[in-house]
Amino acid sequence: SFTLGEAETKYSMTYSPEVLEAFDNKNPNSDAWTTFLCTEFTSLCPKTSQPDFARIYINYIADKKMVESKSLKLYLFSFRNHGDFHEDCIQKICDDLAKLMKPKYIEVIGEFTPRGGIAIYPYSSYSNSKALYKSIKAKRFAEYSPGKYTMDMSKIY
Amino acid sequence: SFTLGEAETKYSMTYSPEVLEAFDNKNPNSDAWTTFLCTEFTSLCPKTSQPDFARIYINYIADKKMVESKSLKLYLFSFRNHGDFHEDCIQKICDDLAKLMKPKYIEVIGEFTPRGGIAIYPYSSYSNSKALYKSIKAKRFAEYSPGKYTMDMSKIY
Amino acid sequence: SFTLGEAETKYSMTYSPEVLEAFDNKNPNSDAWTTFLCTEFTSLCPKTSQPDFARIYINYIADKKMVESKSLKLYLFSFRNHGDFHEDCIQKICDDLAKLMKPKYIEVIGEFTPRGGIAIYPYSSYSNSKALYKSIKAKRFAEYSPGKYTMDMSKIY
Amino acid sequence: SFTLGEAETKYSMTYSPEVLEAFDNKNPNSDAWTTFLCTEFTSLCPKTSQPDFARIYINYIADKKMVESKSLKLYLFSFRNHGDFHEDCIQKICDDLAKLMKPKYIEVIGEFTPRGGIAIYPYSSYSNSKALYKSIKAKRFAEYSPGKYTMDMSKIY
Amino acid sequence: SFTLGEAETKYSMTYSPEVLEAFDNKNPNSDAWTTFLCTEFTSLCPKTSQPDFARIYINYIADKKMVESKSLKLYLFSFRNHGDFHEDCIQKICDDLAKLMKPKYIEVIGEFTPRGGIAIYPYSSYSNSKALYKSIKAKRFAEYSPGKYTMDMSKIY
Amino acid sequence: SFTLGEAETKYSMTYSPEVLEAFDNKNPNSDAWTTFLCTEFTSLCPKTSQPDFARIYINYIADKKMVESKSLKLYLFSFRNHGDFHEDCIQKICDDLAKLMKPKYIEVIGEFTPRGGIAIYPYSSYSNSKALYKSIKAKRFAEYSPGKYTMDMSKIY
Amino acid sequence: SFTLGEAETKYSMTYSPEVLEAFDNKNPNSDAWTTFLCTEFTSLCPKTSQPDFARIYINYIADKKMVESKSLKLYLFSFRNHGDFHEDCIQKICDDLAKLMKPKYIEVIGEFTPRGGIAIYPYSSYSNSKALYKSIKAKRFAEYSPGKYTMDMSKIY
Amino acid sequence: SFTLGEAETKYSMTYSPEVLEAFDNKNPNSDAWTTFLCTEFTSLCPKTSQPDFARIYINYIADKKMVESKSLKLYLFSFRNHGDFHEDCIQKICDDLAKLMKPKYIEVIGEFTPRGGIAIYPYSSYSNSKALYKSIKAKRFAEYSPGKYTMDMSKIY
Amino acid sequence: SFTLGEAETKYSMTYSPEVLEAFDNKNPNSDAWTTFLCTEFTSLCPKTSQPDFARIYINYIADKKMVESKSLKLYLFSFRNHGDFHEDCIQKICDDLAKLMKPKYIEVIGEFTPRGGIAIYPYSSYSNSKALYKSIKAKRFAEYSPGKYTMDMSKIY
Amino acid sequence: SFTLGEAETKYSMTYSPEVLEAFDNKNPNSDAWTTFLCTEFTSLCPKTSQPDFARIYINYIADKKMVESKSLKLYLFSFRNHGDFHEDCIQKICDDLAKLMKPKYIEVIGEFTPRGGIAIYPYSSYSNSKALYKSIKAKRFAEYSPGKYTMDMSKIY
Ligand SMILES: [Ca+2]
Ligand SMILES: [Ca+2]
Ligand SMILES: [Ca+2]
Ligand SMILES: [Ca+2]
Ligand SMILES: [Ca+2]
Ligand SMILES: [Ca+2]
Ligand SMILES: [Ca+2]
Ligand SMILES: [Ca+2]
Ligand SMILES: [Ca+2]
Ligand SMILES: [Ca+2]
Ligand SMILES: [Ca+2]
Ligand SMILES: [Ca+2]
Ligand SMILES: [Ca+2]
Ligand SMILES: [Ca+2]
Ligand SMILES: [Ca+2]
Ligand SMILES: [Ca+2]
Repeated sequence: SFTLGEAETKYSMTYSPEVLEAFDNKNPNSDAWTTFLCTEFTSLCPKTSQPDFARIYINYIADKKMVESKSLKLYLFSFRNHGDFHEDCIQKICDDLAKLMKPKYIEVIGEFTPRGGIAIYPYSSYSNSKALYKSIKAKRFAEYSPGKYTMDMSKIY
Repeated sequence: SFTLGEAETKYSMTYSPEVLEAFDNKNPNSDAWTTFLCTEFTSLCPKTSQPDFARIYINYIADKKMVESKSLKLYLFSFRNHGDFHEDCIQKICDDLAKLMKPKYIEVIGEFTPRGGIAIYPYSSYSNSKALYKSIKAKRFAEYSPGKYTMDMSKIY
Repeated sequence: SFTLGEAETKYSMTYSPEVLEAFDNKNPNSDAWTTFLCTEFTSLCPKTSQPDFARIYINYIADKKMVESKSLKLYLFSFRNHGDFHEDCIQKICDDLAKLMKPKYIEVIGEFTPRGGIAIYPYSSYSNSKALYKSIKAKRFAEYSPGKYTMDMSKIY
Repeated sequence: SFTLGEAETKYSMTYSPEVLEAFDNKNPNSDAWTTFLCTEFTSLCPKTSQPDFARIYINYIADKKMVESKSLKLYLFSFRNHGDFHEDCIQKICDDLAKLMKPKYIEVIGEFTPRGGIAIYPYSSYSNSKALYKSIKAKRFAEYSPGKYTMDMSKIY
Repeated sequence: SFTLGEAETKYSMTYSPEVLEAFDNKNPNSDAWTTFLCTEFTSLCPKTSQPDFARIYINYIADKKMVESKSLKLYLFSFRNHGDFHEDCIQKICDDLAKLMKPKYIEVIGEFTPRGGIAIYPYSSYSNSKALYKSIKAKRFAEYSPGKYTMDMSKIY
Repeated sequence: SFTLGEAETKYSMTYSPEVLEAFDNKNPNSDAWTTFLCTEFTSLCPKTSQPDFARIYINYIADKKMVESKSLKLYLFSFRNHGDFHEDCIQKICDDLAKLMKPKYIEVIGEFTPRGGIAIYPYSSYSNSKALYKSIKAKRFAEYSPGKYTMDMSKIY
Repeated sequence: SFTLGEAETKYSMTYSPEVLEAFDNKNPNSDAWTTFLCTEFTSLCPKTSQPDFARIYINYIADKKMVESKSLKLYLFSFRNHGDFHEDCIQKICDDLAKLMKPKYIEVIGEFTPRGGIAIYPYSSYSNSKALYKSIKAKRFAEYSPGKYTMDMSKIY
Repeated sequence: SFTLGEAETKYSMTYSPEVLEAFDNKNPNSDAWTTFLCTEFTSLCPKTSQPDFARIYINYIADKKMVESKSLKLYLFSFRNHGDFHEDCIQKICDDLAKLMKPKYIEVIGEFTPRGGIAIYPYSSYSNSKALYKSIKAKRFAEYSPGKYTMDMSKIY
Repeated sequence: SFTLGEAETKYSMTYSPEVLEAFDNKNPNSDAWTTFLCTEFTSLCPKTSQPDFARIYINYIADKKMVESKSLKLYLFSFRNHGDFHEDCIQKICDDLAKLMKPKYIEVIGEFTPRGGIAIYPYSSYSNSKALYKSIKAKRFAEYSPGKYTMDMSKIY
Repeated sequence: SFTLGEAETKYSMTYSPEVLEAFDNKNPNSDAWTTFLCTEFTSLCPKTSQPDFARIYINYIADKKMVESKSLKLYLFSFRNHGDFHEDCIQKICDDLAKLMKPKYIEVIGEFTPRGGIAIYPYSSYSNSKALYKSIKAKRFAEYSPGKYTMDMSKIY
């Protein structure tokens, strides 16, 4: 992989899970939700090389680690010239963040723009093995619908 | 049926469930939702031959098979000159996809444009026989309302 | 009552539940939702004869019978010169359709335009006597809120 | 024609331009715009007797007379059981108000709901014979577009 | 208190719960929801006399009595020159209507416009002592969020 | 071409300008605008046979003839299985209607859904040879922008 | 008239143009627009004493004087228990501000909520006698439409 | 810390939890929700000193104490020149209000504007130790999604 | 530059104006507008290599040549890994298309997403040397405002 | 004044026009518009020290110099703890940028959030002394209305 840019920030041009960085959660004993919304995700279709675009939502309950937001930005940027299907991108982001942070719970949702009049919205989730988080995962999974766990457009600017 | 078009893509002019293609789900053991939204569905009214238009939403939890998105597009296109009632189109799509993929769960929703000041929104669903997916089906069915399982307009383009 | 119009369609000028027609549900053993939205309902205030306007939503789970949509349109039209309170119109529509179809479950919602700065939204529901549909009725009733079981405006045209 | 209702208000059941009432403009020498929006207009299709629905906008510059708003309401109500084409309703309202008030300028716009997937929006206008108002009429006519002279939906309740 | 107005309608200029009138519910044995939305509520801040403005939503399940809508309008108008805090206005409306109708359940919600960049939304509820309505009250209370039990703006006009 | 349907209405399956019918304008001496919006236009891409979808707007000033709305619907339907580029469909509609009605002025606008992340919006216009209508055409052309001469989405249902 | 409130602010309970205060415009030689939006205007209907509600927009080009915003708030509040027609309130506000400030140009617009299904939007304007401002007045008057000179709802909070 | 301003109101320029004031809840035995929305929160990024902006929502069930709204405004203002991460601001507000009021339940949500294409939405909650409020906390936590417990933009002004 | 992809389509990874292709305008003597909207434009900031995102609008009046839409897509894609400032991207697109087609008039507008709380919207235009198109250019330039020549979001999907 | 932050960026805590930096316009002979939108402007009320918030729009036609966007961000940030009236902030920004760049034309618009139910929107503009830009300034001034020269909310994120 090669890089462009200034001294401080290195944007990788290939899929780079290694840029993700975690830091210690100050309050691992109290549960809180954190949501990241990336409005500017892009990857390449593995079949046609055509670029794909999506909003990516990450909702998670941290355990001992939290993801550093700038490293998350660089990580998501690293899909820019990477070829992968919609569902696989979302699963990969979920897996990489689960591996990095070992959160109590995490879900990743992609809202991709349509191709040929068809839009695709994948949803992946993960919990640790504790009963509480397994039940949160099961409940949220059963109640899932497109847009339910993601922010209204009018609230985003 | 006759076909138009280029070498690569054959659009069938009659209802053609046989164009649907499935591929293997890479992660059959972990549950994930996939949503397809087709904003450009059209069929014909069997009584009047007048064209009907709808947004079609397909939310499903794959088991061993997933539907290939381009084949889905061709399949939905094959209703273009097919005469069927709103509810029957939705039921047929649900049945055809259930038969193709044998998913853990699938639901199909049609948001049709009004005729004579009356709009119709049908909802069909299917689950396999496992308790978990039967309970997901029952819960979602009981909590159904128009638009609840479909994407906000402002999120679509 | 007198009638206007062409040979094919007789619009009744008085409240006419007898115009409602049912047909056989092809799939009485599998549960599905059907929603009708009438954006153009009008009746008369019984006190002042002033016209009232509403969107009417009908969500139902058919049993052996379904309501024919054109007859529904004529039925709703027959309130045009009928004087009744908002709540009574909604209750009457619910009762008439329950009587016609004997559905597993039905709910009727009116979203009336304001009078004197006050808008009224009535909600009526009915289920047959089976435990499943009684529980659906109870759950939906407990969770009711204005607009919850009706379509977003941006999805209607 | 026959009437329903309370002592104070007589709603006519047939087209009744005679219910319109005017009063003296207190400031005939200074020009001002007044807009009336009726969100609840309904008439009957002369071919099918099917009810039609529209928002009606009336923008005018009064001369010596202004239309009394309650009489305007009763007048618009009198189209309720009257059969006329969309364009003819709008032209008739424009003509009747022009005749009543002899305004410097008036325009009437109908935003009708669709029939068979086609919506119709007619626009009629009138000015007196003074150069200023004739030029206002010509300019507005040349620059007309659907919705340009009518209120945004989000501003109406 | 003094009054203004025509012969028929007396608008009280002070808080006047006595103007509320009830009538008999025709169907006390079947449960139905009725919602009133008053888009034009105003009262005075007891500290600064500055006017406050709100949308008021009343969702209730009638028992033997229902509130007459015109009397409700006059009652809400009587807060116009009354000084009270946001939360106290809402609690008072809930208490007065509960006292008048003894409903199975009632909830009152105020959506006040901001003061100094801060908006306040109070929510009060009441049920009778039956288990069903107590459980409805508890469930709705636990699931409350701002706007959840009130109508979307786009549906109001 | 072959036809489907009931006795009364013949929907042509091929491009059929001959279905267009005109009737006499009752008021050819006074200028008025009429707008038709067809929210459900579909044709086929001549290269790929993939269906295209659009909203079509027709704004015109009638001279001696007006287009009959049902015939317009049938005409637009006849593009359903017709292969043509976006710009050519719009130009053809403009030409056909100009030929049929010889209006003082007409403009046709297509708002097509995107293909491959690119949406196309063509605009065609025509006037007769009188100075007034030529100047209206020139002014509107110079001031054109996407959406300027078409209805806001929130006003359509 | 009587007053309520704290030491610092006296809210008058009757129409009180005398509360308006002006201050010197620092830049009388360079033209700039200032807009005031009052989202919370209320007055009383002179016929029925029923409260009316509106958004009031004031767009003006100051000359030597500008209106102090807190005094404007108190002035608008003084209509609270004042009985006047929609058009007369708007004309009065325009006249009072023109008298106070002698602006180069001022326009006042009221967006009132509907009564009986009819909403009224009045527009008044004034300019001084200089050719430039007279021409601004004439141009804006000719191009007026409802909502044209007022802020989009989505931009207000 | 230093202060600016008038005699009555002291805005602190540093984080100042001590400005918060509580008053007695008049109805500690009946549960009610109160929501505060601050549309104008701003703090500084501790890494870059760049200003951050958010809407802050506070939903709580009071016990014996309630927070005085003006003191809340001053408290939130005191973050203006304070450097803290998004999640830490929200946690701190939740902790400070919990300490002040000892509410039955409180939740605090921040909707921050994006930085570098990434927006962050933190959610913190607290309950007292009673079973009812612990269960409300657990339920709401499990069902959390971005925007779920906060007001629709269209309802705010 | 290197390429990815299938046999048919070569996506260039560097800025590639040479991929643009023109075809003959069938109607060079009649003026018509064509608009292209690319909702998925991305380039790189030349200072930081951070990706930038925009909607790009191209409104033009063809002369003898028109741009082929698929080649336009590939051309816009070629900015994906190209570093350039917002204004320079827009100017370059305008220049490249002017050079390719020699249109009567063309304008290019970029609606970029914000960086650090600041969004940038550049606008470039070109006309040939004929008086008519020079005057169209001058008029549109003088009347420009952000969003004026671009499509409403609600019309895009 | 004192500063916080990292090595690279110094955020000034007092009004600091000296941080503005210009660079050479590459194309001073061809006219183009550039718009900056700052969604996160805040200053202090000079009377009460209460924070004010606004969206600031800057539309300009560069001559030989352009403003560097990061320096503009720092400049706008420097109003954070500066006390000034709404109109004076906007005039000051317009003056400072006119002095820095000597643009052909510039306009600055502030959309401030309401205080006490009143929102204020100031508009200032400047042109150089050439006839073309003076006429652009005069035309835009005459046609000004709130929101006319600023971006729709739905297009911002
Ligand atoms: Ca959502
Ligand atoms: Ca937005
Ligand atoms: Ca939905
Ligand atoms: Ca709904
Ligand atoms: Ca709609
Ligand atoms: Ca409009
Ligand atoms: Ca509204
Ligand atoms: Ca709601
Ligand atoms: Ca509305
Ligand atoms: Ca438009
Ligand atoms: Ca406007
Ligand atoms: Ca919400
Ligand atoms: Ca708002
Ligand atoms: Ca636009
Ligand atoms: Ca959209
Ligand atoms: Ca604008």
